[in-house]
Amino acid sequence: MARLPPLLLLPVLSAGGAAERGGSSSAMEELATEQEAEESHRQDSVSLLTFILLLTLTILTIWLFKHRRVRFLHETGLAMIYGLIVGVILRYGTPSTSGRDKPFSCSLEDRPFTTLLVNVSGKFFEYTLKGEISPGKIHNVEQNDMLRKVTFDPEVFFNILLPPIIFHAGYSLKKRHFFRNLGSILAYAFLGTAVSCFIIGNLMYGVVKLMKLVGQLSDKFYYTDCLFFGAIISATDPVTVLAIFNELHADVDLYALLFGESVLNDAVAIVLSSSIVAYQPTGENTHAFDAAAFFKSVGVFLGIFSGSFMMGAVTGVVTALVTKFTKLHCFPLLETALFFLMSWSTFLLAEACGFTGVVAVLFCGITQAHYTYNNLSVESRSRTKQLFEVLHFLAENFIFSYMGLALFTFQKHIFSPVFIIGAFIAIFFGRAAHIYPLSFLLNLGRRHKISWNFQHMMMFSGLRGAMAFALAIRDTATYSHQMMFSTTLLIVFFTVWIVGGGTTPMLSWLNIRVGVDPDQDPPPTNDSFQVLQGDGPDSERRNRTKQESAWLFRLWYSFDHNYLKPILTHSGPPLTTTLPSWCGLIARCLTSPQVYDNQEQLREEDSDFILNDGDLTVTYGDTTITANGSSGPHTATTSLDGRRTKSSSEEALERDLGVADHEITSRGTRLVFPLEDNA
Amino acid sequence: MARLPPLLLLPVLSAGGAAERGGSSSAMEELATEQEAEESHRQDSVSLLTFILLLTLTILTIWLFKHRRVRFLHETGLAMIYGLIVGVILRYGTPSTSGRDKPFSCSLEDRPFTTLLVNVSGKFFEYTLKGEISPGKIHNVEQNDMLRKVTFDPEVFFNILLPPIIFHAGYSLKKRHFFRNLGSILAYAFLGTAVSCFIIGNLMYGVVKLMKLVGQLSDKFYYTDCLFFGAIISATDPVTVLAIFNELHADVDLYALLFGESVLNDAVAIVLSSSIVAYQPTGENTHAFDAAAFFKSVGVFLGIFSGSFMMGAVTGVVTALVTKFTKLHCFPLLETALFFLMSWSTFLLAEACGFTGVVAVLFCGITQAHYTYNNLSVESRSRTKQLFEVLHFLAENFIFSYMGLALFTFQKHIFSPVFIIGAFIAIFFGRAAHIYPLSFLLNLGRRHKISWNFQHMMMFSGLRGAMAFALAIRDTATYSHQMMFSTTLLIVFFTVWIVGGGTTPMLSWLNIRVGVDPDQDPPPTNDSFQVLQGDGPDSERRNRTKQESAWLFRLWYSFDHNYLKPILTHSGPPLTTTLPSWCGLIARCLTSPQVYDNQEQLREEDSDFILNDGDLTVTYGDTTITANGSSGPHTATTSLDGRRTKSSSEEALERDLGVADHEITSRGTRLVFPLEDNA
Repeated sequence: MARLPPLLLLPVLSAGGAAERGGSSSAMEELATEQEAEESHRQDSVSLLTFILLLTLTILTIWLFKHRRVRFLHETGLAMIYGLIVGVILRYGTPSTSGRDKPFSCSLEDRPFTTLLVNVSGKFFEYTLKGEISPGKIHNVEQNDMLRKVTFDPEVFFNILLPPIIFHAGYSLKKRHFFRNLGSILAYAFLGTAVSCFIIGNLMYGVVKLMKLVGQLSDKFYYTDCLFFGAIISATDPVTVLAIFNELHADVDLYALLFGESVLNDAVAIVLSSSIVAYQPTGENTHAFDAAAFFKSVGVFLGIFSGSFMMGAVTGVVTALVTKFTKLHCFPLLETALFFLMSWSTFLLAEACGFTGVVAVLFCGITQAHYTYNNLSVESRSRTKQLFEVLHFLAENFIFSYMGLALFTFQKHIFSPVFIIGAFIAIFFGRAAHIYPLSFLLNLGRRHKISWNFQHMMMFSGLRGAMAFALAIRDTATYSHQMMFSTTLLIVFFTVWIVGGGTTPMLSWLNIRVGVDPDQDPPPTNDSFQVLQGDGPDSERRNRTKQESAWLFRLWYSFDHNYLKPILTHSGPPLTTTLPSWCGLIARCLTSPQVYDNQEQLREEDSDFILNDGDLTVTYGDTTITANGSSGPHTATTSLDGRRTKSSSEEALERDLGVADHEITSRGTRLVFPLEDNA
Repeated sequence: MARLPPLLLLPVLSAGGAAERGGSSSAMEELATEQEAEESHRQDSVSLLTFILLLTLTILTIWLFKHRRVRFLHETGLAMIYGLIVGVILRYGTPSTSGRDKPFSCSLEDRPFTTLLVNVSGKFFEYTLKGEISPGKIHNVEQNDMLRKVTFDPEVFFNILLPPIIFHAGYSLKKRHFFRNLGSILAYAFLGTAVSCFIIGNLMYGVVKLMKLVGQLSDKFYYTDCLFFGAIISATDPVTVLAIFNELHADVDLYALLFGESVLNDAVAIVLSSSIVAYQPTGENTHAFDAAAFFKSVGVFLGIFSGSFMMGAVTGVVTALVTKFTKLHCFPLLETALFFLMSWSTFLLAEACGFTGVVAVLFCGITQAHYTYNNLSVESRSRTKQLFEVLHFLAENFIFSYMGLALFTFQKHIFSPVFIIGAFIAIFFGRAAHIYPLSFLLNLGRRHKISWNFQHMMMFSGLRGAMAFALAIRDTATYSHQMMFSTTLLIVFFTVWIVGGGTTPMLSWLNIRVGVDPDQDPPPTNDSFQVLQGDGPDSERRNRTKQESAWLFRLWYSFDHNYLKPILTHSGPPLTTTLPSWCGLIARCLTSPQVYDNQEQLREEDSDFILNDGDLTVTYGDTTITANGSSGPHTATTSLDGRRTKSSSEEALERDLGVADHEITSRGTRLVFPLEDNA
């Protein structure tokens, strides 16, 4: 029943600095409270400083590793190692100071209030509820001050650290490859995660039964707990694998599949775990199957997911509209600030409405990348990317170093060897049941099959990371949850260090192509454009594309291209040509004047030339964002130069190219639909 | 005695999300607590959302204003207006819901504990101390939930919002003009603020005496309180004026004087206010003059100030060394993250050691700009600038909109007309006593006099802003402090709206030059170089420079140039030439190999040519940061192009040029010292 004493908000926030004045009548008494508050503030600073120094050390070591091209250990793995070391030092190196704040007991008859007024010799003090503590653990509260100081409120992970990570993931989805594989990614993320959750949950229930038989279980462990564990541990996070893919330029389709799946299945895992928590059968027998409760859980899943999706999409759309219809791009600082605030408000809006902020932020990121990004000034594009890149980097490494630390400083670990071994076996089978059958089914529909090698690689890349940890630490109140948390921690360690370290050998063992230039391999014009254009030099590839652009995708694509893009950005065909004629006025208002310019220009130029010459198309695409509508060699030079001189980091360049690709695609295809519609 | 119920940490942090599981034995009871926590979390999200929407609205309106070149109202003024409107709505528009959390009283015999364990029908709950509440105000706690939700813990301002603002100020000090006027700036900041504090404190003591006579004072108001008010209200913040200066390209020396003074006097005001608080005479008569306590206060001032200064300088130097001796600049993301972490750790380090984090952050910013900046890659330079620019922008506008809100939502305002009028008169005289006599004294020493017009403009620019507000809201426990807070709020409103709005007319009325190109006016080679070089075309300007580069400055300059720059950056003369010969080994280790390259190159080229041609010198300066030591036309083109294509925002460009100037200067002068030393 005990809940982790929540201990520490962001340290700089707590303490509250007490009234900083003496000199009044009861100076001595005030002074004592003041000094205590100051001492607490100082300790908070020290503990936060510990984490910052840890991160600094991690950064310096990462640099050394990158410098020497060491690939067997990723920065997150490194952060964990340093965290472990500091954890050991804190655990065994610091004296177990008993807290000076002797807890006081005082009986209330009713349920606990969130605010408490306490009368101390005539003065009133306000107290706030922190949480419940199980009677047996009361002494923990008094135990080691330093260990308590470095333990963060679990909600910090969910509300502060995860959002930038998830937003960045959404904002940097490689759009072209992502959308081309959309169907498979959605199947992996939704069906796959559900299958994985169910398999792991059931296997773990078997393990728990076994433990009960052997007498290794000392408290309750229900079936819903097992399913919950299945849900949290199904959130994969192949950050290590993806980093190596990026560095080695591994196959882009495989990258898209892995990255897309991992991004979306985080969302699925969060919502799944809340729906499992929401499963509360009525009546006496609270842990038997109850159809009503089950359907309620399914309803909760659908409700939260679609609600969060809507929130994210809506704020993304609003931001796109605002950036389209104002000339904010003349002031990149304002634009960036607006972008940041709007993206943040998604999170708060979703939380305020009872949906899941993290999920909303993900879809907001995707929407921002798809629409708003095109409206931003060149400077804001790089600013927003860089801003979220830094935030993401810091948050991610912080979480991983905290994980290392938590192994030794978390005070309620329950390590059960049977459960841990069972969990490792279960996640192996869960991952296998997730990847192979689904791939088989998908391959029935895909012309461009997901090869065995790719399947093995996906199987191999089922690393667990920040999301599984954040979900597990969120609730460590009961025996079962504490055991899950400890096990999750070990699974993350193992997968990040061992599996992550084996990525490079695995890639070469599976003969997966590396050094692929995403620009050259599938040529920029290889998109649904060719599906409709008919003959081309390489019909095999065309067919493959056709296959992948299934009806769902094509439907979405044409809707997006004909209506959403023209409404939300400066690109696409004018609405006056795509909307029915009776919408004339609205269409004219919503269409950006630059679209007409672009349109005319398009007709003047030789369309074949544009489609064949990638560079010029990029140029053309870039001109759509210049405010004054001027286009031509001047802007082109700027943007190309900007790209050439920009970055010494391969990563940034890589991502840049990804975006440019997408623009080529979306601009290139523009020629097809409007001309057809006009004909 | 009552302290503001601290109410709200960053909302997303509070709430704590309660254990998210039902299904256990006492499900119903848990559910109730859970729902309450969820409700509280939702309200927190709503209140933070309110602020974000406010900021969004502000940004959009700022854009409109900038777009239409409206200059009578600055963005901060606008943020305050919107804050006021929302404050009125919250105050009078929302129902005064009495909090559901009925406070409970429970008597303790001893002084209050910071942690409280409460026994509720057999379960234990942990509570933490929030602060004292005066018996009369207990009902406030129950009052309006919404008003409480939008009231932040005052420490948030000091620990979260001020640091990025102050760091950005330090990081963007226009170095050339700043150092040229260093003596005057230091005089204004230290002497001036002290004088202003003393004058205002004494005048206010007169006002308080008067109020006591008239019977308008209902509680105690000591002389130290008056001095405290003098300290907090002496922190000027001419953000509005400086923005207009920047936009109109007003005189750079005046800009440097105003900006430098306002940045440094914030630090002085903080430390001054803490030293006044530390003034606690012993014995019975606690409010008479006590020499021991006075000297202790002076000691506190010196201790805190120098300690914070050291902390800031040390972390800056460490960052410079790390960025110099690693090749982090190949990975701009790592570099930026490191820069961010190190700068943040200054704050924590200072707080952990009992110094003032905000002050440390300021000097860290200055050090980073002076040394570390030169070691960063081109990308990191713009990244760090932009990162802190965005943070600064958001934090500043947040504070100002909060100020608007606080006028109506803060529940313990005490508006005393006599005190307010007295305060306005006092700050007028305080500012006058600060500017005119000091300028007179400084003009005795300065060849390039501070003209009457400049003095009037400085007098006029004594706006109060974020710092005065943060200092005032930090402690609103007593009657006197509440009155000071309300008065400070009004002074900020008045100065930002009325004085800020009058800047443009004032500038033209005082005939202060605008449209000055900082590059052209004092030519790049105009520095101490000429002091030693003898003849030049414009001897008047040379003399002026000579005058300003007084012995203190020259001493510092040559030390900085000969030892610090070569140790901490890739520029400057090799240490092997500046250090005595017995330090040979150390000198060789510390000197960057690139310095020798630069040195040789320098000798090969025609030094006159370099000194006369500003652009080439910039080019040359920039090559020192390329990792591989390669220099020449390639890099030159990059950096120049980068600057040309970079920015559509005038501000960014302006600041950029400022930095470039500085490089020209420091590189240009390099020719002088080492050649002399070598001779």
